[in-house]
Amino acid sequence: MNKIKITLGIDIGGTNTAFGFVDQNGKMIDEVSILTKGWEEAEKLFDRIHKKVSKLYKKYSAQYELIGVGVGAPNANYYKGIIVNPPNLQWGDVDVIAQLKEYFNLPVFITNDANATAIGEMLFGAAKGMKDFIVITLGTGLGGGVVINGKVVYGADGFAGELGHTCIEPNGRKCGCGNSGCLEAYVSATGIKRTVFELLAKRMDESPLRKIKYADLNAKIIYDAAKQGDPIALEAFEYTGRLLGISLANFAVFSRPEAFILFGGLAAAGDLIMKPAKKYMEEHLLITFKNKIKILSSGLADGNSAVLGAAALAWNELDGRKVLQE
Amino acid sequence: MNKIKITLGIDIGGTNTAFGFVDQNGKMIDEVSILTKGWEEAEKLFDRIHKKVSKLYKKYSAQYELIGVGVGAPNANYYKGIIVNPPNLQWGDVDVIAQLKEYFNLPVFITNDANATAIGEMLFGAAKGMKDFIVITLGTGLGGGVVINGKVVYGADGFAGELGHTCIEPNGRKCGCGNSGCLEAYVSATGIKRTVFELLAKRMDESPLRKIKYADLNAKIIYDAAKQGDPIALEAFEYTGRLLGISLANFAVFSRPEAFILFGGLAAAGDLIMKPAKKYMEEHLLITFKNKIKILSSGLADGNSAVLGAAALAWNELDGRKVLQE
Repeated sequence: MNKIKITLGIDIGGTNTAFGFVDQNGKMIDEVSILTKGWEEAEKLFDRIHKKVSKLYKKYSAQYELIGVGVGAPNANYYKGIIVNPPNLQWGDVDVIAQLKEYFNLPVFITNDANATAIGEMLFGAAKGMKDFIVITLGTGLGGGVVINGKVVYGADGFAGELGHTCIEPNGRKCGCGNSGCLEAYVSATGIKRTVFELLAKRMDESPLRKIKYADLNAKIIYDAAKQGDPIALEAFEYTGRLLGISLANFAVFSRPEAFILFGGLAAAGDLIMKPAKKYMEEHLLITFKNKIKILSSGLADGNSAVLGAAALAWNELDGRKVLQE
Repeated sequence: MNKIKITLGIDIGGTNTAFGFVDQNGKMIDEVSILTKGWEEAEKLFDRIHKKVSKLYKKYSAQYELIGVGVGAPNANYYKGIIVNPPNLQWGDVDVIAQLKEYFNLPVFITNDANATAIGEMLFGAAKGMKDFIVITLGTGLGGGVVINGKVVYGADGFAGELGHTCIEPNGRKCGCGNSGCLEAYVSATGIKRTVFELLAKRMDESPLRKIKYADLNAKIIYDAAKQGDPIALEAFEYTGRLLGISLANFAVFSRPEAFILFGGLAAAGDLIMKPAKKYMEEHLLITFKNKIKILSSGLADGNSAVLGAAALAWNELDGRKVLQE
């Protein structure tokens, strides 16, 4: 009997690292999550991953054949196979491909998390069959994965698509990257929280949000307040969606995508963010683009979507890709 | 004796149409310019081009072999081979490839003028050897030609790269496209003229520009005034360069180019626009991109550069390309 081919997707995060086996149809066979322990050496994490995977694989090796490994990680460089000084991890630069190859003796591929998500959407999610689209990940920050003609755009050094760092307001809010006025400082879980605090200062309305410390406020609380009709929270979503919509119109001019795919916590707020994003995108789009570009929600199941993306990277790079397209 | 292969480049403009024979090294063998006469049918222009080319080719056919035709034109669609309702020409939609093939019986290719310029720069100009770069044409408007991994980005319908229509100022200046706040309404020959009129209203300085009607003012007059030290003209260039620089930093985030190549009348103002563009681009670039992205002037000779670009399109599409890269 021919074994069913699977790839291993690994999503390295600041707190947790998740990994799992994924078949060529995007079915997650099994999945595990462990602590990243970013204060230890990266080598130790890889060792723990390998042990867990080996144990898990014993359950499946009669039926499945592992043919490659895909890794999604912050600050990952696709060309060089390394992670460059990742935030929240005390690693410096790590040669992930070289190290993981020693453990797994299989082809290993790496890219940043937003790009892995883009490949996941293309192979298994909302972008199936599309050749030109842009994934926007809305989490703590704002990430971008740009696909043109069926390929992720990496640019001259592997760091293209950092759409969260387009300047939308010269001399605007300070951003974690060191610059000012970056999109990510407005449109992200952190951005909407900053917007709420601006609105609390600017407006006079009563609001349950006035009772929450900056350190305690998060996007979920703002979402719940908006659902209760709180005007501050509603305006914060409208403002966030407006800036997102104008930015999508600008991104569209660059590569004329078929669709934008929104992914992550803030995207899960649904109409609260989607409606103004759509409205202001259409308003600012080049005339010839109007009513032609979709805004879609992620088509990847929640929870394991980052692992699916990492596994998709491996599928996309391996011959398995041909199988998929047959 | 083997004949030297040449392509015919045709640049269709609102007023003039220029065309010429170009060899695989970008050498212009001969060149002609005729009136476009946009009030007549496109067919008549093609007929006149064909007659002129046939006559010209007689001089060269012993030594050269014409192997293809490239066309650069406003609103041209690379995928469909057509020009869509071009501004300043009373043509509606024209199937350029079908019509020109009847005359020339050779492979014909078409793209918009900014994309043709980008291919010209890649094959013959400032982008030789680069795979990721962006050409910005600064004329009456602002055009963009985006090259990623050695290929022009056309997007889902052939109209990607319209960088002049990114919104830099929501509710800002009205743009010819119908939207408001487009980059082109600020950074172009027309844009700098509008800036001068804003500054004349805002400031009190004496300036020779106060004696010129809006209808008479142009970028050349502003350039000359700046060279004479006129503070209004100098501030207009500084402001234009600043907005250009911030926009370049934003474009860079998308595709991480090796270089921007500035082309056209306003780019010819040299340091007046290049210096602020460079300064503000660096100031707004993502930290990891700083001091890595060049701003270059066009490497195509003036005057015939649009024809070189159109001819380069044909070279790039034909087998001739392989010859070039050997």
